[in-house]
Amino acid sequence: MATFVMQALGCEVSAINTVQFSNHTGYKQFKGRKTPAEEVAELYEGLKQSRLNDFDVLLSGYCPSAGVVEQVGKIARETRFACTTKPGAFFWVLDPVMGDEGKIYVSEEVVPAYKNLLKDADLILPNQFEAELLSGVTITDFKSLAEAVRELHRSHRVPHIIITSVRLPHDNEQGEEPELSIVGSTADSDFNPRLFRLKVPAFPVFFSGTGDMFAALMVARLREACLAADLLTTAHWQPPDEVTATELPLAKAAEKVLASMHLVLKKTMDSRQQELEKMEGTEQLNSGIGEEADKDNESDKYLRLTKAAEVRVVRNWKDLVYPPDIEAFKAHAVNVELD
Amino acid sequence: MATFVMQALGCEVSAINTVQFSNHTGYKQFKGRKTPAEEVAELYEGLKQSRLNDFDVLLSGYCPSAGVVEQVGKIARETRFACTTKPGAFFWVLDPVMGDEGKIYVSEEVVPAYKNLLKDADLILPNQFEAELLSGVTITDFKSLAEAVRELHRSHRVPHIIITSVRLPHDNEQGEEPELSIVGSTADSDFNPRLFRLKVPAFPVFFSGTGDMFAALMVARLREACLAADLLTTAHWQPPDEVTATELPLAKAAEKVLASMHLVLKKTMDSRQQELEKMEGTEQLNSGIGEEADKDNESDKYLRLTKAAEVRVVRNWKDLVYPPDIEAFKAHAVNVELD
Repeated sequence: MATFVMQALGCEVSAINTVQFSNHTGYKQFKGRKTPAEEVAELYEGLKQSRLNDFDVLLSGYCPSAGVVEQVGKIARETRFACTTKPGAFFWVLDPVMGDEGKIYVSEEVVPAYKNLLKDADLILPNQFEAELLSGVTITDFKSLAEAVRELHRSHRVPHIIITSVRLPHDNEQGEEPELSIVGSTADSDFNPRLFRLKVPAFPVFFSGTGDMFAALMVARLREACLAADLLTTAHWQPPDEVTATELPLAKAAEKVLASMHLVLKKTMDSRQQELEKMEGTEQLNSGIGEEADKDNESDKYLRLTKAAEVRVVRNWKDLVYPPDIEAFKAHAVNVELD
Repeated sequence: MATFVMQALGCEVSAINTVQFSNHTGYKQFKGRKTPAEEVAELYEGLKQSRLNDFDVLLSGYCPSAGVVEQVGKIARETRFACTTKPGAFFWVLDPVMGDEGKIYVSEEVVPAYKNLLKDADLILPNQFEAELLSGVTITDFKSLAEAVRELHRSHRVPHIIITSVRLPHDNEQGEEPELSIVGSTADSDFNPRLFRLKVPAFPVFFSGTGDMFAALMVARLREACLAADLLTTAHWQPPDEVTATELPLAKAAEKVLASMHLVLKKTMDSRQQELEKMEGTEQLNSGIGEEADKDNESDKYLRLTKAAEVRVVRNWKDLVYPPDIEAFKAHAVNVELD
């Protein structure tokens, strides 16, 4: 997902696959292999020995072990060190994939491994739960959310943060369409947050890979917005203090990213609906009867539903390249009084 | 290369990487890992258990061992078997990567492994040397070339063949621009060739990945041409005997493929030239003197030249999607009297 999306937006990608699985884990079964940390290190050494490690941007996503997290950190630090005299020449987008909705789905030692890396990242993309894990702040409302962001800016010196899929108790009032928010901030020179929020309609279906899609689109759109603001030779692409929250390149980029994503996911919903209708028409029941056959039917149905929800990103790449101009995805400032 | 090109043309790809290397082998050094045959088998089993193996087309390229070649053959046969009652529902494009210009660069047992698979392939894409290895016919002129193609049609029952990069002694006469040809054929119902040829200007630089680019473009363009000719439900997408060589969907597809490729490679040549000019401006010599430093400079220069020749495919994907309408890439019939 991430490789294709970045390529579609014109980025030359050197992909180091941290897993080679037969399918995404949403199918609840898969075969394949996690890449050992030593192999990630070896591939990077290979790139280095042929002078192919002059990266502008690093995007890191799911790492199958703390060892891989640490290895990714080494690559990022070494690449940044090579750019010491060239501010802004290297930018690391770190998606600290650890868990969601209160559950950790990586081994416990991955959490401190990520915490150690935060000070080297330029932009982090935790979800609400991951932001809690990294900041130590429990997020229950906008105030605690802002505190978590400030903590990440201050203690870990992270310049840019986007918390993806924020769900706060009062967000969905009765009768309203389900919504979630993304909340972003670029620190000012005193490490205070400049907070903005975008609301997105929530789909009633789980789509696998949307985190990677968001991260990959952000890479391309943030660089584009920072190029327009002449920030690519400024350390961490950090805009001056007078730039307000909604005028941040991070906010501008997020608007385009969400417009593209929403359209692709909407088209995916439509395609999924067509698949479901076909399924109902040709429901193939196993010839057997009894519990065993019921179980097979259930499992078969689950697999087909999961496949029907695969994000239609390849056939809709035009929506990535040319995001629709939708007023709905406008960043709004979040004003919270912090102690 | 192959995955991106197919995706750019709208194909949903399930890629099984047969190697994970740090860079292409044109750099003469690389690190990484060849995928063992057991792992290819395991990934396919994973796809199968989640019902994700309903492929329309299989494209197979470089296989690092005879074991992987055999495993790919198993996948192809099993997928075709599942489509027994649906002619044309599965199509296998086999690029039998073995060597070039008289040299085999895979282990010797890969050659018989490929020979055993030919009967199951729909389209094969050998270069001139690989066509000789597979057919047992030494190619010295158009007559022997036609014999090799007929042999592959007859003995191995391969419906479609394209021999990529054909260089025949009388092709490049003095003073002429260097050229190479691709020669293709779709068998008629008596397994006789319907031969066509396209000439392409040869670039004086080695570009890595052009074989994969050609194969991936052929997958998309052949399917498109066969859809237009209403052949997708005909076994092996084989057109009726009255279709002449230059009217074959295979020939029509090859015209579009070469037009796209030529433009991307031309743009790559231009970008390479710009890189070379930059290199000359900033020639960084090692501070040392003597043989060791000379050697380092040589090696450094080689790596930079190789990088400068990387095919600019990502930034030029529009040329893949919208091939230029160039009259130069027209298929011409090859008329040879065979015994």
